[in-house]
Amino acid sequence: MIALYFAPKTCSLAVHIALEYIGIDYEAIKIDFSQQEQRKSEYLSINAKGRVPALAVDGTVITEVPAILFYLSQRFPQANLAPLDSLEASAQMQAFNAFLCSTVHVAHAHRFRGTRWVDETETDAIDAMRRKVPESMGQCMALIEEGMLKGPWVMGEQFTVADMYLYTIATWLEGDGVDISKLPRVIEHRDRMSQMPAVQGLQALYS
Amino acid sequence: MIALYFAPKTCSLAVHIALEYIGIDYEAIKIDFSQQEQRKSEYLSINAKGRVPALAVDGTVITEVPAILFYLSQRFPQANLAPLDSLEASAQMQAFNAFLCSTVHVAHAHRFRGTRWVDETETDAIDAMRRKVPESMGQCMALIEEGMLKGPWVMGEQFTVADMYLYTIATWLEGDGVDISKLPRVIEHRDRMSQMPAVQGLQALYS
Repeated sequence: MIALYFAPKTCSLAVHIALEYIGIDYEAIKIDFSQQEQRKSEYLSINAKGRVPALAVDGTVITEVPAILFYLSQRFPQANLAPLDSLEASAQMQAFNAFLCSTVHVAHAHRFRGTRWVDETETDAIDAMRRKVPESMGQCMALIEEGMLKGPWVMGEQFTVADMYLYTIATWLEGDGVDISKLPRVIEHRDRMSQMPAVQGLQALYS
Repeated sequence: MIALYFAPKTCSLAVHIALEYIGIDYEAIKIDFSQQEQRKSEYLSINAKGRVPALAVDGTVITEVPAILFYLSQRFPQANLAPLDSLEASAQMQAFNAFLCSTVHVAHAHRFRGTRWVDETETDAIDAMRRKVPESMGQCMALIEEGMLKGPWVMGEQFTVADMYLYTIATWLEGDGVDISKLPRVIEHRDRMSQMPAVQGLQALYS
């Protein structure tokens, strides 16, 4: 049995898309951030980090988007969601996903989660962080636009879990104040992703 | 042929330890941050992100510590540096490494790299970020101390690449102002790692 702990407006969407695309049975368990459920003991016993997503597989809990996505691509190879026949290509896909989690998502998080990195009383610093997000996210996305997104998919001809993760983060760009007119390839990719049944079926849950 | 692009005092140490431990031939190419070499076109043609480490394998470049470490563990399975016989255990190891890159390293980076997330003119905000590092790094390391580090190694009985990455970040703790008296298991792990020949042989390069 597979269970996904998710929350609307978060990066759990990437994993959610993968589960829908693969087409397996799974249970989706919503963690209500408005009720701070991610910080309550019931959820902390599943993921002590207090974050989503978490994937429970027969009692084993896997966290962190890149780890879960690669796991699903290996566990369900028939979905052909990673270049598993090449260690080098798989590593490059994981490098792309690591960039999204360690740099791009982090740039975005400075808009709403500034108190992770300054004291909550430092409101001027929190505002300063928020002002930088359009530029820092814009720089990250420019790297993707200008090379990392090989086209038509992130890894080139093969559609992979990296596309699901990029799509997820690309849905945040307008809110982050990024000038999307400079990112035609990223936006064309996002538009194509948004037409997929696996994505469309989740829009109500994530809106 | 394998080449590692590295820089002293950076997380390239984790990959460097892996290469030494595996015992393969490789070329180590130092990127001199004091000369801003990471931002010059010669290096940007290798890694457009302008960061280290980067691993060049027969012309293919792999970036991001978690991706490189897992690649090496797969490419040289005789070194037994990942639980490759279990997809779930491999995913948990990758989740640990993803936490290090996306959360722990990021907390640390607010000490010296604040201008990634606020404008360089916002010196008060940069100072505010620096003041938070002991607490934010301390919280990250407490999660590792209290559960994620299974013991004696990160993944339990098996020594893996996750140990190399944790060791690397643990060498930053005193500089980050973290109270290491609260982290006896992490420090004991660090001490044990520091005795390994693969680690000792790199101390001069990274000091």
